[in-house]
Amino acid sequence: MRKDGKSGFTARGEATRLRIIEAAAEIVYAEGAAGMSLDEVMDASRTSKSQLYHYFCDKDALIQEVIGRQTRRIVEANAPHLDKLDSFDALRSWCNMIIEANRTFGAIGGCPLGSLASELSAQSEQARAGLANGFEAWRSIIAEGLARMKNQDKLMPSADTQALSMAFVAAIQGGILLSKTSRNSQPLEVALNMALSHIERYVVAPAER
Amino acid sequence: MRKDGKSGFTARGEATRLRIIEAAAEIVYAEGAAGMSLDEVMDASRTSKSQLYHYFCDKDALIQEVIGRQTRRIVEANAPHLDKLDSFDALRSWCNMIIEANRTFGAIGGCPLGSLASELSAQSEQARAGLANGFEAWRSIIAEGLARMKNQDKLMPSADTQALSMAFVAAIQGGILLSKTSRNSQPLEVALNMALSHIERYVVAPAER
Repeated sequence: MRKDGKSGFTARGEATRLRIIEAAAEIVYAEGAAGMSLDEVMDASRTSKSQLYHYFCDKDALIQEVIGRQTRRIVEANAPHLDKLDSFDALRSWCNMIIEANRTFGAIGGCPLGSLASELSAQSEQARAGLANGFEAWRSIIAEGLARMKNQDKLMPSADTQALSMAFVAAIQGGILLSKTSRNSQPLEVALNMALSHIERYVVAPAER
Repeated sequence: MRKDGKSGFTARGEATRLRIIEAAAEIVYAEGAAGMSLDEVMDASRTSKSQLYHYFCDKDALIQEVIGRQTRRIVEANAPHLDKLDSFDALRSWCNMIIEANRTFGAIGGCPLGSLASELSAQSEQARAGLANGFEAWRSIIAEGLARMKNQDKLMPSADTQALSMAFVAAIQGGILLSKTSRNSQPLEVALNMALSHIERYVVAPAER
């Protein structure tokens, strides 16, 4: 019986598995991985102990699926904006969207990946590797957008799209953390403005293309 | 009997109180606030339950002291560098020191304040406020250094030292988090280079002063 993959279960089984992951993700987001008990997950997902262990061999395996689920959610939420990224203005619009979302929720929510990374990176090598992959997936879609701008001569050849995208993710993470702590979206806004200015230095004016 | 202040205890009592806070800070740094039990703190600090409750009314009160202790530690560690901050080169040297420290420890350690902020900001209003003060204390010493440079005409009058220092703390936090997750100091280096470039735009060349 496979317990770690996405396939190998019936459609109904897969639905149950996903319901468990969703329930776990919500609890982890609110209380951290340490605060999540399997009893709580069973309650929230309306599953029995034998069902839960049918799909996940232990809590670590479930946390690993939560990391994968949060990564896909972030990539899916941002890809429609970043797939179209073909100008500095589009990048700025995306940043404004992030800031607006943060403001709408009173700057309360952290980044689901960032919170788990902060909690688990030093405690579980498996979780750390999963979270590193999550950040990398996110950074990659930003890097691809910047590379597209570079190919279209909208960014200078000297723009290091790998480093710029990494700095961007750092600015988002640091900004969200400070905003969550101060209950104010200003730190996120200030951090994203820094990240935008950093990229703007490499923007080629239309007349020069 | 005071349980929340720094004074009001004998020298020996104060030493015990500080020993408890130190022990708690180490456990929290390694395992998070959720992972800290008072039994563990008693063991590590060689204190009894009655001694512990003599100084701290509950776990939350102890966590609050840990936040204060970590804030003072960061401010004390960085103040000698930032108190002398009078040039862009001095700022760059300080950043190099942060990166070197991160590299020396294999990028494993997170920021003690950042980790607690990520864990507790949404869970405890008291902790959140304490952590916001901690970040603010840190940001202030950076802002003061930048203001000094501005007063010496080394930064342009248009430099917003409040926003620049906030962006700086965000870059440090985001960079440390990504470095901790990837076990590589490069994200921190890239983030701090972004923060430095952001400030460099406002640097006044010596000839123009």
